[in-house]
Amino acid sequence: MTFLNKLENAWSKNQSLLCIGLDPIQEKFPSHLRENVGQIFDFNKQVIDATHDLVCAYKPQIAHFASIGAEKELEKTIEYIQKEYPHIPIILDAKRGDIGSTAEKYAHEAFVRYRVDAVTVNPYLGSDSVAPFTSYKDKGTILLCRTSNGGAEDLQDLEVDGEALYLKVARKIGDDWNENKNCLAVVGATWPEQMKAIRQILPDTVFLVPGVGSQGGNVKDMILAGKDSKGKGLIISSSRSILYASNNHDFAIKSREVAMQLRDEINTYL
Amino acid sequence: MTFLNKLENAWSKNQSLLCIGLDPIQEKFPSHLRENVGQIFDFNKQVIDATHDLVCAYKPQIAHFASIGAEKELEKTIEYIQKEYPHIPIILDAKRGDIGSTAEKYAHEAFVRYRVDAVTVNPYLGSDSVAPFTSYKDKGTILLCRTSNGGAEDLQDLEVDGEALYLKVARKIGDDWNENKNCLAVVGATWPEQMKAIRQILPDTVFLVPGVGSQGGNVKDMILAGKDSKGKGLIISSSRSILYASNNHDFAIKSREVAMQLRDEINTYL
Repeated sequence: MTFLNKLENAWSKNQSLLCIGLDPIQEKFPSHLRENVGQIFDFNKQVIDATHDLVCAYKPQIAHFASIGAEKELEKTIEYIQKEYPHIPIILDAKRGDIGSTAEKYAHEAFVRYRVDAVTVNPYLGSDSVAPFTSYKDKGTILLCRTSNGGAEDLQDLEVDGEALYLKVARKIGDDWNENKNCLAVVGATWPEQMKAIRQILPDTVFLVPGVGSQGGNVKDMILAGKDSKGKGLIISSSRSILYASNNHDFAIKSREVAMQLRDEINTYL
Repeated sequence: MTFLNKLENAWSKNQSLLCIGLDPIQEKFPSHLRENVGQIFDFNKQVIDATHDLVCAYKPQIAHFASIGAEKELEKTIEYIQKEYPHIPIILDAKRGDIGSTAEKYAHEAFVRYRVDAVTVNPYLGSDSVAPFTSYKDKGTILLCRTSNGGAEDLQDLEVDGEALYLKVARKIGDDWNENKNCLAVVGATWPEQMKAIRQILPDTVFLVPGVGSQGGNVKDMILAGKDSKGKGLIISSSRSILYASNNHDFAIKSREVAMQLRDEINTYL
């Protein structure tokens, strides 16, 4: 089954466009889970068990593991989801990008070592840096288009032939790079106007939308700007506001409450 | 000591602008070093021992380790250089880039976990994605400007206000992002004309120059286009043509021969 089929199924089964970003920051964990790095898996497992029926995807962010040598905990987290909740797709948030021969190694990291369903990729190096990812036909390649951060404007808004650079990137995502129909776009929730412009260029592309919650993106504006003609087309990702809803023993229950609230809020605007 | 001071010293001590890229591909190793992943360190060690007096830096490329779960071998390689050849700076080629809070994790990965002297960074996410790297004042942040691959033209050559995007990036590297005077630029050896234009914008910035050797960059053209007014300013990186000069027991000796030849060729044009 392709990533996009799997996503479609998870959308339907859980009636949810919500993706939970797994960005473990051990200092924010309940105190009983701050004793050793191995407990990152325990934390993730409890959040996953408490939310698996509310999400369309999980998105582990690799730097949160790699910065402290916790690759083992990333592997265990992915294996756990695949074993217990095999219908939920996993997106590795890694924002990789390199020349072709090295991009092959990064694609191997995501799709063979970690066996995830999709990975985020940076478009700055162009077509031959993207192809090694898209050549895994059943996997998703999610290209940065308009990111959620303030500094996004520095390069992404520069005007090229009368339109912003991120719109040029959107055209490549929909056309040149999409031969295998497995490209998606990262579009930050913090920019509904820009999202609307990208949706016009990419009517059928799925957007991965970070920036809801802690980063301040407004849910209603974002959905009205970004939903596709079928009222879907979005993977709406939230991390910190769900993971760290409580730092007591009740953290998993609280994460479920916040996730349910956000899923339901999203559904009111579809 | 800052990365740039360390680099200056290595340039002088070894009379070399040559950097060896450590891109281990075990299938290309001599057959006696293909038995287990741990031998990646043995291979790297022998190349390093054979070349340490010929280089100004080593540049391990992280995907070649991460794709096969060889983080341990990357750590051991870095520790070995730091212990045996502490005057040689180490550049982690990782091309990271993410929103600020995640970029902090990537900077931690490079500078705290792996303790390297510099790291390569992708500029597409803008200022707040770069600042977490440059805030390590003694470390080098090496920003992609004009990459060595064919697809570089897809985005990097797009015209913004009458000049190519990579020149806009060059201006940011020299100005907005360089408050701590620790920014460098990646400029592919395969594009001498573009390198010349970047050198005009960045007269004093050090360029990391991949693409010599296997990728086909011409040494003479590149140096005449890229050297600074003091006849330096370049870290010229070659990987595969040095590492895989032989796949027999003599591989380390052969890697030394190719490295020496390239170092000497570079020096004839300075």
